[in-house]
Formats: sequence, structure tokens, C-alpha cells
Amino acid sequence: MWIMSRISWLFARLYNDLEPRQEWLELARHGIEFIRKYGFDDDGRMFFAVTRDGRPLRKRRYLFTETFGIIALAEYARASGDRDCLSLAKKTMDLVLDLYGKPGALEPKVFPDTLKTRGHSMAMILINTLQVLRSAGPGSAYTDRIDRAIEEVFRYFVKPEKKALLETVGENGEYLGHLPEGRCVIPGHAIETAWFIMEEGRHRNELKLVERALPILDWSLEFGWDEEYGGILYYLDVEERQPVQLEWDMKLWWPHNEAIYATLLAFTLTGEKRYEKWFEKILAWSLEHFPDKEYGEWIGYLHRDGTVALDLKGYYFKGPFHLPRQQLFCHLLLKEMLSNG
Amino acid sequence: MWIMSRISWLFARLYNDLEPRQEWLELARHGIEFIRKYGFDDDGRMFFAVTRDGRPLRKRRYLFTETFGIIALAEYARASGDRDCLSLAKKTMDLVLDLYGKPGALEPKVFPDTLKTRGHSMAMILINTLQVLRSAGPGSAYTDRIDRAIEEVFRYFVKPEKKALLETVGENGEYLGHLPEGRCVIPGHAIETAWFIMEEGRHRNELKLVERALPILDWSLEFGWDEEYGGILYYLDVEERQPVQLEWDMKLWWPHNEAIYATLLAFTLTGEKRYEKWFEKILAWSLEHFPDKEYGEWIGYLHRDGTVALDLKGYYFKGPFHLPRQQLFCHLLLKEMLSNG
Repeated sequence: MWIMSRISWLFARLYNDLEPRQEWLELARHGIEFIRKYGFDDDGRMFFAVTRDGRPLRKRRYLFTETFGIIALAEYARASGDRDCLSLAKKTMDLVLDLYGKPGALEPKVFPDTLKTRGHSMAMILINTLQVLRSAGPGSAYTDRIDRAIEEVFRYFVKPEKKALLETVGENGEYLGHLPEGRCVIPGHAIETAWFIMEEGRHRNELKLVERALPILDWSLEFGWDEEYGGILYYLDVEERQPVQLEWDMKLWWPHNEAIYATLLAFTLTGEKRYEKWFEKILAWSLEHFPDKEYGEWIGYLHRDGTVALDLKGYYFKGPFHLPRQQLFCHLLLKEMLSNG
Repeated sequence: MWIMSRISWLFARLYNDLEPRQEWLELARHGIEFIRKYGFDDDGRMFFAVTRDGRPLRKRRYLFTETFGIIALAEYARASGDRDCLSLAKKTMDLVLDLYGKPGALEPKVFPDTLKTRGHSMAMILINTLQVLRSAGPGSAYTDRIDRAIEEVFRYFVKPEKKALLETVGENGEYLGHLPEGRCVIPGHAIETAWFIMEEGRHRNELKLVERALPILDWSLEFGWDEEYGGILYYLDVEERQPVQLEWDMKLWWPHNEAIYATLLAFTLTGEKRYEKWFEKILAWSLEHFPDKEYGEWIGYLHRDGTVALDLKGYYFKGPFHLPRQQLFCHLLLKEMLSNG
């Protein structure tokens, strides 16, 4: 359902922002129909995976599937004018916000009586989900909620004294340095958050908000870039201890897509030369290592040294999303730069 | 709690089978005391992780922690004669068998109405857990249950036509080839199962049972050995498609420990030269790549090419277990071979 939703979002967005091709709208509709028919459980939550014919296989304790469902429904509603689709998107958004705000609504991984933790991912994905939903019509209704999600990122996860955005902190943003989870940095994730916030600054024409996000981008690029082999490392430990994830030093496609767009956006909004340099450096390394020259699209998973580790193109967690989103968004940004001379 | 239990088991076993050193018994007792005090939830299940001072952090939906707790308690009971310890081990064993046998007792990952699956791990670990518990005193009480676990392995997971032991199958052993999970082979796991069954054959003096396990060992070594760089690969796809685990081609310490002991045991019990050759080959590759020359013990996680990926010695899933168990068991086996001339 991650990928089904993300593909549907993509085709609807291409239709909306690139060219109103009927085939794209039709592909989006095809996905949306399946999602509406088989993607939802009776409680309004979504399944993570269903069989080919729509029978539920897995539902996870996280709300990510729902957020991807929302952007698909909202973008398709914007493309098609389908009001039911928009109201399902809004209803699902309300449920996500409700469950996210309610302690204990979703079974926590760690006993909260012993340790209350906060994860960065949800605040991050909420910013983007709310932005897409807002663009589909409810006007400024979601702007306050976007503000809150951005404030959450800065209040709890951004640690200037460590030059890092942490993935997991205590309830009040406490540094959990005694746990590997508490020292965990995912540069690609932090970079994605940075450009979600920059986009909000651009949308509101508030350079100050853009500037607030720039240090996250700077730290993550400097810390995440692999000086030895090039490319962006997947997981890091903020104290430079050994990360515990077996795949920590692999080079995944998506952090590179996020970094390519984030640096181009930062350059466009600030004119700072360093972002142009980063953009060119990351793009060059990526184009050298990720594209599948025979069948197109990008290989997803490389070893640290840039050799192919897994040649998967599609899987529960990989589909046509990060790469085409980056391509579309870069294309639109570059077109705008050209037209502005 | 995995590691706490496994360390406690190890010191008790060293005391029981190598040398009755008081310090080893004391170290085992130290761990057992913590486990009894803080390891158990009110429902008789165990926590996966607790804080340093014993407050519960995580409890998982799997029963592996409990099985490691049982071997620790049982081995310590054998060393110390502590009857309470033995009865806690038996009580926990009963609970594990009860929950394992009851459909829906533990929240399944996949909706059972859509797809009922069986995992190899539990049948496998039950064999070993019951063997250790049996050796602590209940005599032959657990032999029937060991038979059932072994039969489960052969009935559901062993697929001679595919020359593989599969990790996940349908309820009745159906091949789930349309899912990556259904094609998944973990050579190190299969090798461990093979020697658990061989040990049972040795215990009963039934060469036939040993011989039944040998194909599992043969297939796993042939399929799992990396002809390009040496060493045993972590995950494979039985149809030789791309495994979906990001760490599939890494070389982990434990499959090598299990293979070293399994091949020595197979050689001892059958006299087949090929097992001696495998033993020497795996041991040589392992000793060249895994030992930490400065601080001792083995590095846990290597890249496919044998370079260090993570230099972790201890973590939730790694501690002094597979290596010292292999060393102890090989030592005892070689001593026996020598004394038999």
C-alpha cells in the first residue's frame, strides 16, 4: 500500500503539475480505485499489504501507510475534482492526527512507563502530508497544523550543539545517548525534512523559515557524505560510534534523490554557491552509480563502495516515488529558474 | 535478555561440561538472579529488554527470549542443583509450548484469515531448548516433544526437491513462492537445525536420525558458500532471485560458528571425508576474517568481501554465545576423538 499510494500520487501530480495527460490521470484513478476498495480497514486505518485480489495481509503499528494514502487521495482529488476522494483524504488525516496525538493509541515498541520516546519520522511526514492535502483544496485549514509539526521538529529533534537532527529522543527532547537508538542519525531523512520545511518557507514567501531549515541540510550533508567512496551513508551515530544497523554504510537511492532536490531548492532560494556545488557533486555520484542502464529507473541498494548489493527496483519499500518526484520537482524548479532568466 | 540468558547458559555449561570452576558458577548465578528478578512479566512471558536497573523496556511477539531463558535456568539448575530454577524453567517451557500450539495466542504478523504461515525458527529452537532442559533432570520427559519438533522440521520445511530448508511455508508446508518470504533460505539457520537433529541422533545412538539431517547440512553448505569471496552468505532466495534483505550478502559470525561445529560433528558421526574438508575450509576462512586480533572475540558483521562492516562485539543480538559454544563443543568432540584414538 505504500507503493500503490505513492504511484497513484505520482501520476496525479504529473497530471496536475507537468501536463494533463489523460493516461496519467487514468493510471492514478486505477490505483485510487484499488486503494479505496481494499486499502482501508473498518477502523479507518489502512493495511500495509494486501493480496493481489485485495485481501488484507498486514497492518502495521505505524501510520505511514495512511499518510501515503492521504497524499494519493488528495492529489487525485485535485486532478479529478472527485469530492469523495478529498473527503476520505481529510477523514484519514483527522484519524492520523488523532491517533498521533493520543498517547497509547498505537501499541508502543518501548514500555512508556519506563521510557517515553519520540520519533522524528511522524513529525516529518506530517509536514509533507499536510502540505499535499492543503494544496488539494482545504485552503489554509492545515497551515496551523503544519506549523505545529515544524515546531515539533525544531523543539525536539534538532540539536544545534550536536549539529544533527536526531531520529529518537525522550518525551521532552532529551538526548538518549545511552541507547544506540538515541544516537541514531539518518542523513537522508534529515535532508528530506529540511526540504519539506524549505518548501513551506517558499509557499509562505518566508525566507526566515527557509533559513531555519538550512543548518539541518548543511549538517546532514557534511556528516552523511562518505569521504572515502562518495555518496551518502544510510545510518550514522551522532557520537561517531559504530551504528548498529547492519546496512548502515550502504548507499540507498532515496537519500540521494532527496539530497539532489534539497540542494537545488536551497540554491534556488538562497543563491548560495555551496548548494550548487553539493547539487552537482551528489548528482554526478548518483548518475554514475544508481541508474540501471539496461532497463531504466535506479538500482535501490549499493554497497558502501558503490557496487550493486541488491538490484531490486520494486518491493514493499521501493517503487517509483523518490526518483520521479526528484526528477519532476527539479524539472519544475529549473524551468522556473530559466523563465526568471 | 537474549544475551543475559545466553551468557548465563554459557558459564553454567562451562562449569558442567568443561571444568567446575567456582567463578563460572558464580557468573552464571549472577545472571540467573537478574533474570529471575527482572526478566519475567506477570503473565510468565519474558521481556526482550530491560533497563540496567531492571525496568521493562520491550517485550516482543516472539518466544525466543523465553527459550533462551529456559536454557539458562535449566543449565544453571544442573550446575547448582537449584530446584526452584529447574521448576521455573519447566513452567516457562510449558507456557512456550502452550502458546506455540495455540493459534492466535501471539499476535501474528500476517492476517491468518488471508494466509496462514509457519516459520522454521520456532521448531528449530524448540529442539535445542528441550534438549537442554532434558539434560537438567526431567529425564526422558521431553523426548516425545523433541520428536514432534523434529518431525515438524521435516514435514513442513525440508524440501528435498528444492534442496533446501525453507524459513517460511504455508500452514501445511505449502511452498509460498509468490512471496519473497516464501523463497527465503537462511543457510546458517538450516545448518544449526541440522546439528541440533544430529545431536539428537547421537544422544539416542540412532545413526538413522543423523543421516536424515545430513542433506540439510549438504544443501546449505553448497548453496550458502560464496564461491566468489568465500564465507557463508546470510540470506538466499531458493529460486536464486534477488533476496530482499539489505544484509543478504554479508558474512555474519554465527553461521560460521554453527557450520564449524556442524561439520565437525558430521565428520565425527559419519567419518565422511567431505565434512572434514568443509570443516577445515570454513574454519580457515573464519579465522582469517572474524577474530579481533587486538581485543579478542570475533567481529560480528563483515561485508561480502570479508572487510569489516560493523565492529560490534555486543548488542541486543550479539554476545558471547555462538563463538564460545562452538569452541566448547568442538573442544569436547575433539577430546573424545583423541581419547577414542
